[in-house]
Amino acid sequence: MAQWPSIIGMMEGPQAQFEDCVIIIGVGLIGGSIAAAVRKRFPECRVVGVGRSQERLQAAEAAGLLTESTTELTPDLFAASGIAVVCLPVDMIAESVSCIADVSGPDVVITDAGSVKGAICDAVVGNPTASRFVGSHPIAGGENGGFEFADADLFEGSVCVVTPTDSGAESSRQVQRTRQFWEAIGCRIVNMSPHEHDAALALTSHLPHVMAAATATAVGVDNLALAGTGFRDVTRVAAGDARLWEAILTGNRDSVVAAIQAAEIVLAGFREALVQGDQSRVEALLEHAANCRNTLDKPPQ
Amino acid sequence: MAQWPSIIGMMEGPQAQFEDCVIIIGVGLIGGSIAAAVRKRFPECRVVGVGRSQERLQAAEAAGLLTESTTELTPDLFAASGIAVVCLPVDMIAESVSCIADVSGPDVVITDAGSVKGAICDAVVGNPTASRFVGSHPIAGGENGGFEFADADLFEGSVCVVTPTDSGAESSRQVQRTRQFWEAIGCRIVNMSPHEHDAALALTSHLPHVMAAATATAVGVDNLALAGTGFRDVTRVAAGDARLWEAILTGNRDSVVAAIQAAEIVLAGFREALVQGDQSRVEALLEHAANCRNTLDKPPQ
Repeated sequence: MAQWPSIIGMMEGPQAQFEDCVIIIGVGLIGGSIAAAVRKRFPECRVVGVGRSQERLQAAEAAGLLTESTTELTPDLFAASGIAVVCLPVDMIAESVSCIADVSGPDVVITDAGSVKGAICDAVVGNPTASRFVGSHPIAGGENGGFEFADADLFEGSVCVVTPTDSGAESSRQVQRTRQFWEAIGCRIVNMSPHEHDAALALTSHLPHVMAAATATAVGVDNLALAGTGFRDVTRVAAGDARLWEAILTGNRDSVVAAIQAAEIVLAGFREALVQGDQSRVEALLEHAANCRNTLDKPPQ
Repeated sequence: MAQWPSIIGMMEGPQAQFEDCVIIIGVGLIGGSIAAAVRKRFPECRVVGVGRSQERLQAAEAAGLLTESTTELTPDLFAASGIAVVCLPVDMIAESVSCIADVSGPDVVITDAGSVKGAICDAVVGNPTASRFVGSHPIAGGENGGFEFADADLFEGSVCVVTPTDSGAESSRQVQRTRQFWEAIGCRIVNMSPHEHDAALALTSHLPHVMAAATATAVGVDNLALAGTGFRDVTRVAAGDARLWEAILTGNRDSVVAAIQAAEIVLAGFREALVQGDQSRVEALLEHAANCRNTLDKPPQ
């Protein structure tokens, strides 16, 4: 596991002052959990929610997640300084970043929480007004959408990948503020390029989702009275929001296709070993898989 | 979900007297949990453990799971009446059943806890001394093997499939005693033929295991710092004992191969829809999978 220490960032020195204002675009599970985390840790900080439904925003405000909310991105919304976090489905992030860049001042940092980074960063880099964008992906979540499931400690101990795209941007003030923001709500920071992120997440997150979905579909509904904890665990994430996941899979298409092909090769290997009655090959395949899985629970060295 | 009520057996009248003696061959997680369940609910019942390692058996006895233990199957082991439950790896069950049939009297019922029933029942049916065998499969378990993880309530509310093979055996006294045994430790009984059981479990249990293993292998160990709860859930069962699962997969080969082929078709469908950029097809595939998965948590109608 030589790669763990190299990709897990270290906390750098004493913590800087937290932002005065956090603007959350899209107050669902992730946006709501960011809001809850900030409200819990920095009660003086303004937490502004931006969304489509006034009713939903008011409910999130009433639940104590937001100090303010609005359905419109206007210049007066943005304080002189602050951080805007776009928590929309991945195919809506780039456009939202551009809108925010247009209406906010130069001291507002813009980041996001999307599970795909390449397409978003590519689109944003092409937009001259959006140079203040620093892509992020906090790796945390749950099957249940909506701010009702928000958890102030969702990010505690989780990894947040930060994907700077400006050359030399790692040292820039925007990147530093983005890192400090996520660290302040509990994340450990990993720096990667957007495309490195997408290749890795295609395997660690997007492929597992497809495999869970394929399992649920292949099993069907006819024998579920005979399903045990194995089926329950393997297919749990398949219950996730189809529209959100369609955007993730198509937004990371090439890497996801490659990951599916890798899984298809392993599955064909199992099938062929079984057809050939090659018991030692079946056991070796299972043993290898168990070793891969067990690595997850070993502490980094 | 019309099939739920038809395959879930009903409790039949007041509970009969429990067995005087339960003999457990193989005191691991399942055998140990059966022992714990009996000890908790029927403290007067003898619970005899049979295994290879005297040391392990004595430890299980010291843990309060067994009232007696032995490393040898001898005639004096078997009380005039009782139930012997074979909790060995599936490829060792048929032989053990024959040995027990040889050394026990006609009032001892023999059952098992194997995840595969066709091959076992076929082998036992061919053995004239083994007509007292009634195949069973309590659908319960965990990733951790060994009686140290035994749980007296493991079977509470779980389904136990009972697979009688004698014609008219459903009404026979052996089948009735087998059903009552599992019900007494918390199971709901489902009656199926051995081959119906295997076809169903290939989908609901054996395929999820292969999919978990294929996911763990395809992902590998390089990016596990970026794995979230999705990967963790999907691959959890892949950490299971490779030797036990090899015996299950090869013992149910034809049905498992058919199940893998079904999953391969779904995976290819995902891959092709992504390659073609067919977003509505990707979403439809995810939606269908989510509907299948969500059926699991709906109450039977």
